[in-house]
Amino acid sequence: MEVAKTIESIRRLVGTARSRGKKIGLVPTMGALHIGHISLIEAAVKECDFVVVSIFVNPTQFVPGEDLEKYPRPLEADLKICRNAGVDAVFAPTPEQIYPGENLTWVNVEKLTEPLCGQFRPGHFRGVTTVCAKLFNIVAPDIAFFGQKDAQQAIVIKRMAADLNMPLEIVICPTVREPDGLAVSSRNQYLTAEQRKDAAYVYKSLQKCRQMIDAGIADTRKIAVEMRKILQQASSIKIEYVSIVDAETLQNIDRIAGKVLAAVAVGIGPARLIDNILVDAGKQ
Amino acid sequence: MEVAKTIESIRRLVGTARSRGKKIGLVPTMGALHIGHISLIEAAVKECDFVVVSIFVNPTQFVPGEDLEKYPRPLEADLKICRNAGVDAVFAPTPEQIYPGENLTWVNVEKLTEPLCGQFRPGHFRGVTTVCAKLFNIVAPDIAFFGQKDAQQAIVIKRMAADLNMPLEIVICPTVREPDGLAVSSRNQYLTAEQRKDAAYVYKSLQKCRQMIDAGIADTRKIAVEMRKILQQASSIKIEYVSIVDAETLQNIDRIAGKVLAAVAVGIGPARLIDNILVDAGKQ
Repeated sequence: MEVAKTIESIRRLVGTARSRGKKIGLVPTMGALHIGHISLIEAAVKECDFVVVSIFVNPTQFVPGEDLEKYPRPLEADLKICRNAGVDAVFAPTPEQIYPGENLTWVNVEKLTEPLCGQFRPGHFRGVTTVCAKLFNIVAPDIAFFGQKDAQQAIVIKRMAADLNMPLEIVICPTVREPDGLAVSSRNQYLTAEQRKDAAYVYKSLQKCRQMIDAGIADTRKIAVEMRKILQQASSIKIEYVSIVDAETLQNIDRIAGKVLAAVAVGIGPARLIDNILVDAGKQ
Repeated sequence: MEVAKTIESIRRLVGTARSRGKKIGLVPTMGALHIGHISLIEAAVKECDFVVVSIFVNPTQFVPGEDLEKYPRPLEADLKICRNAGVDAVFAPTPEQIYPGENLTWVNVEKLTEPLCGQFRPGHFRGVTTVCAKLFNIVAPDIAFFGQKDAQQAIVIKRMAADLNMPLEIVICPTVREPDGLAVSSRNQYLTAEQRKDAAYVYKSLQKCRQMIDAGIADTRKIAVEMRKILQQASSIKIEYVSIVDAETLQNIDRIAGKVLAAVAVGIGPARLIDNILVDAGKQ
C-alpha cells in the first residue's frame, strides 16, 4: 500500500493504475476509521481494481464551535486498517495541500442542504461538497463510496455529481451498527459509558418509526411524537431534530407515502450523533 | 468534423481520441463565432491534437432583462467556421441536455466576482463558472482556451480551476481587435453604423490609460477622469464603469503599481460592450 501526502503523488499513483486499465475507487474519509469505513472499503475493493482512501479532516465542513481541533487523528492505526482491508493507496494530505491559500471557490447545492443538519450546521454541506469536488478532481475515481449514515450528505453529493456532470458514480453503502443498533461513528468515542448506553435510544426511536409505518400509521406528526418519547427516556439525550421527510427532496411530509427518510440528530454529552432509516412505504 | 448534440456522444468522441493518446483542447463558446473565437481555435489546434468547440448559449449566465432570447445563434455558419479552422468535434447541446431539471448545484468564486461586471450583472459569473465546471467535466480537456477580452471571466475561471484542483490548464489568448481598435464581440452586430463608430472610443480610452501610465502618471483617479472624457466624446456611449484595478485581486487601486487591469464597460444602443488592457507598470 502506498501513502501519498501530496496531490502530485496521488495523481501519479492513480495515473499509473488507470493507464493499466484499472477501475479506480475512492473512499473519502476524515480518518478515525471504524467498521463503517471498512464496509465502504470492502465495497470499493469488490467493485474496483485500485482503491484509494483519502484521510483528511476537512476544516471547511466544521462550523465554528464544533470539534475540529479535537477530532481524532489516529493516522498510524488508520493506515493499518487500510492495509489490512486491501487498500492500494492512501491519500493523506495536509490542510495546506488542500487549501494552499484563501479558498474563494465553493460548490454549493441549494435546497437539499437547507433542512435537517443544514439548519443546525450552516456552511457544513458547502464545505463537504467543495472538498469532495476537490478530491474527485484530484483522484478522478470511477466510483466514490459514501455511507448511508450521513443520509443528507449522500443525497447532496449525488446531486452535486449529477448537476455538474462529474464523470463518476456515487455508491451509497448501508449504515453499519453496533449490536445494540447504534450507528458506528468516529464521534461515538466521545461518549462516557453511561452516554454510550443512552445513545442506543437513537436507533430505538427509528425502529419505532418503522414499526408505526408498518402498522399503517400515516400521520408523521404522530410518529414523531412517539419517536421523541423514546429519545426522552435517555436522560443525556438532547434532541436537535426528529424529522420525517421525502427521501428525495428532504422536505417535510405530513403523511407517509413513497420513499421516506426518518432522520434524527441528538447531542449526547460532547457528541453530536445522527442516524436515519429509509422506508419505502409505497402508496398509502 | 463531428457534431455532437448529446453529452454521451461528445464523451464517446473525446474518449476515443484520448485512448489514442491525443491531447484534448476545449474552446467553450456561446456560438456566433468571429475572428476572436477563431484565434482561440487556432491556439487550441496548435497546442492540442483533438480540438472541441462547445457552442451553447448558457441561460444561467444571463441576468434578467439581458439579451438571452435575441442572442445570435447562427449554428450552420458556426459549424462552417469550425470546419475551416480545423476543429475535430463541435459539442452543441440543447439547454435540456445541460440543464435537464432544476439546477441546484452552483460553483461560485467569491470576491473576484464582486467588482467590475459583477456589480452590474449579479449572478452572471456564477452561471459562467457553473457551466464551465459542467463543460470541463463533460469534455475533460487537457487545456481550455478563453479570451482576454473577458478579463474578469478569465481570472475567475483560472481561480475556479486552481481552487477546485481541476485537472486541466486554462490558457488565456489575446484580445482580437478591428482595425479601429474595437474588441471583436458577438454583440458588436447589435450596433448601427453610427454606434459602431462610437464604439471605437472604448479602446481609445484604454489607449489613453496606457499612455498616461507610460508617461509616469500614477494617480488612477486622474487617469480615469481622462478616460471618461474620451468616452464622453461619443454621444451614444453610456458608461457603466471605468476601473483601474490590481490585475490579480481586481480590487481598486489608488496608485499605479505592478500588474494593472484597466477595464471599461459601456452601453451603446442595445449592446453592452466591455474591453480592457493589462499593463505591467513595475514598481512606480
